[in-house]
Amino acid sequence: MSDEIAENGTANGDVPEIELIIKASTIDGRRKGACLFCQEYFMDLYLLAELKTISLKVTTVDMQKPPPDFRTNFEATHPPILIDNGLAILENEKIERHIMKSVPGGHNLFVQDKEVASLIENLYSKLKLVLVRKDEQKSAALRAHLGRIDGLLERRETRFLTGDTMCCFDCELMPRLQHIRVAGKYFVDFEIPTTFRALWRYMYHMYQLDAFTQSCPADQDIINHYKLQQALKMKKHEELETPTFTTSIPIDVNELNNAE
Amino acid sequence: MSDEIAENGTANGDVPEIELIIKASTIDGRRKGACLFCQEYFMDLYLLAELKTISLKVTTVDMQKPPPDFRTNFEATHPPILIDNGLAILENEKIERHIMKSVPGGHNLFVQDKEVASLIENLYSKLKLVLVRKDEQKSAALRAHLGRIDGLLERRETRFLTGDTMCCFDCELMPRLQHIRVAGKYFVDFEIPTTFRALWRYMYHMYQLDAFTQSCPADQDIINHYKLQQALKMKKHEELETPTFTTSIPIDVNELNNAE
Repeated sequence: MSDEIAENGTANGDVPEIELIIKASTIDGRRKGACLFCQEYFMDLYLLAELKTISLKVTTVDMQKPPPDFRTNFEATHPPILIDNGLAILENEKIERHIMKSVPGGHNLFVQDKEVASLIENLYSKLKLVLVRKDEQKSAALRAHLGRIDGLLERRETRFLTGDTMCCFDCELMPRLQHIRVAGKYFVDFEIPTTFRALWRYMYHMYQLDAFTQSCPADQDIINHYKLQQALKMKKHEELETPTFTTSIPIDVNELNNAE
Repeated sequence: MSDEIAENGTANGDVPEIELIIKASTIDGRRKGACLFCQEYFMDLYLLAELKTISLKVTTVDMQKPPPDFRTNFEATHPPILIDNGLAILENEKIERHIMKSVPGGHNLFVQDKEVASLIENLYSKLKLVLVRKDEQKSAALRAHLGRIDGLLERRETRFLTGDTMCCFDCELMPRLQHIRVAGKYFVDFEIPTTFRALWRYMYHMYQLDAFTQSCPADQDIINHYKLQQALKMKKHEELETPTFTTSIPIDVNELNNAE
């Protein structure tokens, strides 16, 4: 288990230490992996660590060879896993709830904004459809959705989704935009139109922020994440089948024996 | 390490015990894997065990989680591995040479036949080309090569390649024919023409033999073997790259800031 400690917040007992366990890269176990929820909670907690309401420790775990103590403690559970004062929280919704309700400063991140919430909630599934179907119709749907986000940012004239400071929605959206940008380009030559100027401005600001850059996986890790998903999907097909052995022949046997 | 003992030959000290370690299936670690050299040497040794010149022990090793004693003994070496009287032979050519020179009865398998040797030596690489290129030209080349083997069998009128008993060339050819049949059909809808009657008769006889059926992987394992090869090939590309982070934007930054 490689320890990667984001040196934010004071390390002494003034503020609680929160540990976030994230998936490592599938290429290099020491790098951060392309796990969307891991990055989202990493960003949430990084912002709180910057505000010094917590100190944050981020640990990457290589799921291809998890260390024995990880397997003992968490068995088949995959990161993200949040550990607060000896309590491990394993499910995404519970992690989010815990950050909102129990982590000092967390409630400030969880802004109420129904328009933004509904605008971003189905974006990512459109990328998945583009990658699976690889047709222009699905690409057009993804582009249209990005256009609506661009429209909101344009209209609101704010730096981030709900104002000039980041909130939970930004931590949710930006990792997904990065996957759309990198995997979309790689697999189906999808590009976010340069005419979406408010959206690009939004991304530009994100690229300047430590909360994003410290938590962001390499392009190769994003690409590899989707390649492995495709390979596993292909493999599953055979795994579910009962083994068969092709040992019949397509010609009448008697006829063959007569020919001898 | 799952032990799978082919009960042939006498188990007592009359004949030497030869152990062959083969790769397990990548789907189910208890099944035989689709490793061509493993099956070839399995067949060679199975024939000798049937003649009671050796007793044969076949051990399958799951390379995705090799047992600690396997890793200690052989590190990164992949099966096939032949163990004779405490001596482990790790390289394919040396295993073949050992079966021919040192395993009792082995020299009988190694018939001299230059025509057959040159006829079968490049067959398998043609399957690989078909699977990579997926074009009709490569399929035609594979089909033509199979046609030449059919022609030889037709002309010789023997049950096997060099006579009415099996030899090393049959143990080499038949596993490859099975991969051509199963993977060719699955990936590119390639079929061995039913007009190759002598070739089908040859395969029919093979399908009746324990030496083949006991050593043959399931169709799913053959298919999965090639799927994983393709996935690993895809993965390697990213593994060799220096990690990069797409954080530039395709629009002039100053222009964006002015728009704010």
